[in-house]
Amino acid sequence: MKIPEQFSNAIKDAQSVVLFTHVHPDGDALGSLLSMAEILGSLNKRVFCYLEEAVPYLYWFLPGIERVNTSLSDLADFTEKNNGVIALSLDCGDCGRLGKNSEKMLEISPFLVIDHHTSHQNFGQYRWVDAARSSTGEMVFELAQHLGASLSRETAFNLYVAISTDTGSFCFDSTTSRTLAIAAELVQAGVSPNEVSSYIYNNYTPQRIRLLERVLATLQLDKSETIAMIHVTRNMFAESGALPEDVEGFVDFPRSIKSVEVAVFIKEAQRDNISISMRAKGRYDVAAIARKFNGGGHRNAAGFRLSGITVEEARRMVLGSITVGDVE
Amino acid sequence: MKIPEQFSNAIKDAQSVVLFTHVHPDGDALGSLLSMAEILGSLNKRVFCYLEEAVPYLYWFLPGIERVNTSLSDLADFTEKNNGVIALSLDCGDCGRLGKNSEKMLEISPFLVIDHHTSHQNFGQYRWVDAARSSTGEMVFELAQHLGASLSRETAFNLYVAISTDTGSFCFDSTTSRTLAIAAELVQAGVSPNEVSSYIYNNYTPQRIRLLERVLATLQLDKSETIAMIHVTRNMFAESGALPEDVEGFVDFPRSIKSVEVAVFIKEAQRDNISISMRAKGRYDVAAIARKFNGGGHRNAAGFRLSGITVEEARRMVLGSITVGDVE
Repeated sequence: MKIPEQFSNAIKDAQSVVLFTHVHPDGDALGSLLSMAEILGSLNKRVFCYLEEAVPYLYWFLPGIERVNTSLSDLADFTEKNNGVIALSLDCGDCGRLGKNSEKMLEISPFLVIDHHTSHQNFGQYRWVDAARSSTGEMVFELAQHLGASLSRETAFNLYVAISTDTGSFCFDSTTSRTLAIAAELVQAGVSPNEVSSYIYNNYTPQRIRLLERVLATLQLDKSETIAMIHVTRNMFAESGALPEDVEGFVDFPRSIKSVEVAVFIKEAQRDNISISMRAKGRYDVAAIARKFNGGGHRNAAGFRLSGITVEEARRMVLGSITVGDVE
Repeated sequence: MKIPEQFSNAIKDAQSVVLFTHVHPDGDALGSLLSMAEILGSLNKRVFCYLEEAVPYLYWFLPGIERVNTSLSDLADFTEKNNGVIALSLDCGDCGRLGKNSEKMLEISPFLVIDHHTSHQNFGQYRWVDAARSSTGEMVFELAQHLGASLSRETAFNLYVAISTDTGSFCFDSTTSRTLAIAAELVQAGVSPNEVSSYIYNNYTPQRIRLLERVLATLQLDKSETIAMIHVTRNMFAESGALPEDVEGFVDFPRSIKSVEVAVFIKEAQRDNISISMRAKGRYDVAAIARKFNGGGHRNAAGFRLSGITVEEARRMVLGSITVGDVE
């Protein structure tokens, strides 16, 4: 899908841009945010990067990460003191994921949106949403080309992090020929794939390993070992000393089992607040399962939230909800 | 490095080709072998694929794997009954790794060699050895282009397996811009990266996860969290039902801890038989540590064996042996 003209014109015309991404940001969210900030800066636009919460320590290695500002009053200052301010949301599938203050953010006009989620719920005035793209990072690369921006090594690095993390290092089925060709261009621009993967994969704390050990002990297999579930409780966080972001990637363990068609990871965050991540391998549509619980995502990666129930109740509920109807 | 003319001419002139690769073959060895076989076949050459030992079950999914022949007498038949027979060795760093019958194989003349190992020991008449290449698969792709051969989906698949496994899914520092550009062309030719990685990475048993859980519980950190040790005992194998080969990759978990400079994995195999694997990140030379115990390896990956001691004794012994003298 081509970049909509109204969308790219709004960016070209803007003097100042506020960038948003989703809460609980991943590599694609932050890599896209920071690379977009640099690209717009190189085009002489003023940029403000807002995130409602602090950046998870896993991503502190991203060049320019100190630009991310969590202060609502700084955001208000920026929008008041600058002319021609537009907003651009990156990698956010619905406006609720912008955070608790999403209504305030959506007051900025025009509000633009770049996203690649299949379950994308339209919001904002000008949108470029392309579910055939591996990552928002891939779209930011195309936009940079379209705007004639040259990529610094740092921008290329952030884009490589965005693309490689959102494709599971070029393994997921969202990886296209174009995705790999863009990765090749980013390496040409100075990115070392080995450096990126060292930061992403050798960036853990001992506490994360202690938590992983406890989470793996919860593995349960159902329906002839086609459904694998793991969970994490508040107790496990307390015992291991791990942080909420340490569970990133844990769902890949049940997913790595050959017989498994759907891997489910149930996370107990605050009391009465359960979040569920699901991964599939093609046969099941986990986005369809997530939609039954008002969640969303892609065919092979989706999630939703539940409240007022225990982990065990959530487990039974999710297991019961995976029906042959979700097989295509 | 360009393809040497004598090398490519010898291939163009050949009517029949015997293909060899190294024993204990990996994805690059077998993927390169099978894709080369198909490419030569498409150029109307007769091809014989020889391997001294049976193909490991992990690679049975490769299209055309049934072509691999382990019979020396079939090999002799092929060379006798055909005219203009040449030999081509793929991904083999020295002729000893062709196997026990390497002398017999080297009687075929001309004997050609394609390889990318930095430690390559020259053998054969015409060689194309390029240590700047990520994989032999990458070189076979270039050769196919040079010979004007078109790639079937199966050939592209085998090349993608070769390249993606030898680069750790495009993570190792051998991954270049050209590597990724070739991967993009292979996807264009019909390869699904997700299908390939499913075969390679989602190939585990629940027993392996149960074993991993137990092994992670043994994590110990020493010397300001720069040395991380894990171990596996015979009991853990018995409790989990896992196989010896299931520990492949476990040393990457202690290695993934940011502060860790040396990761150590102590494996109790048969009674009184302990094997130790070590991984470093550049500061320590683990090959030097291994040599103290009559072991060997590379600077960042080495190992050795001990007998007549317990796991706990081995742990203390290894820990005591890692001294500042090993830091460079």
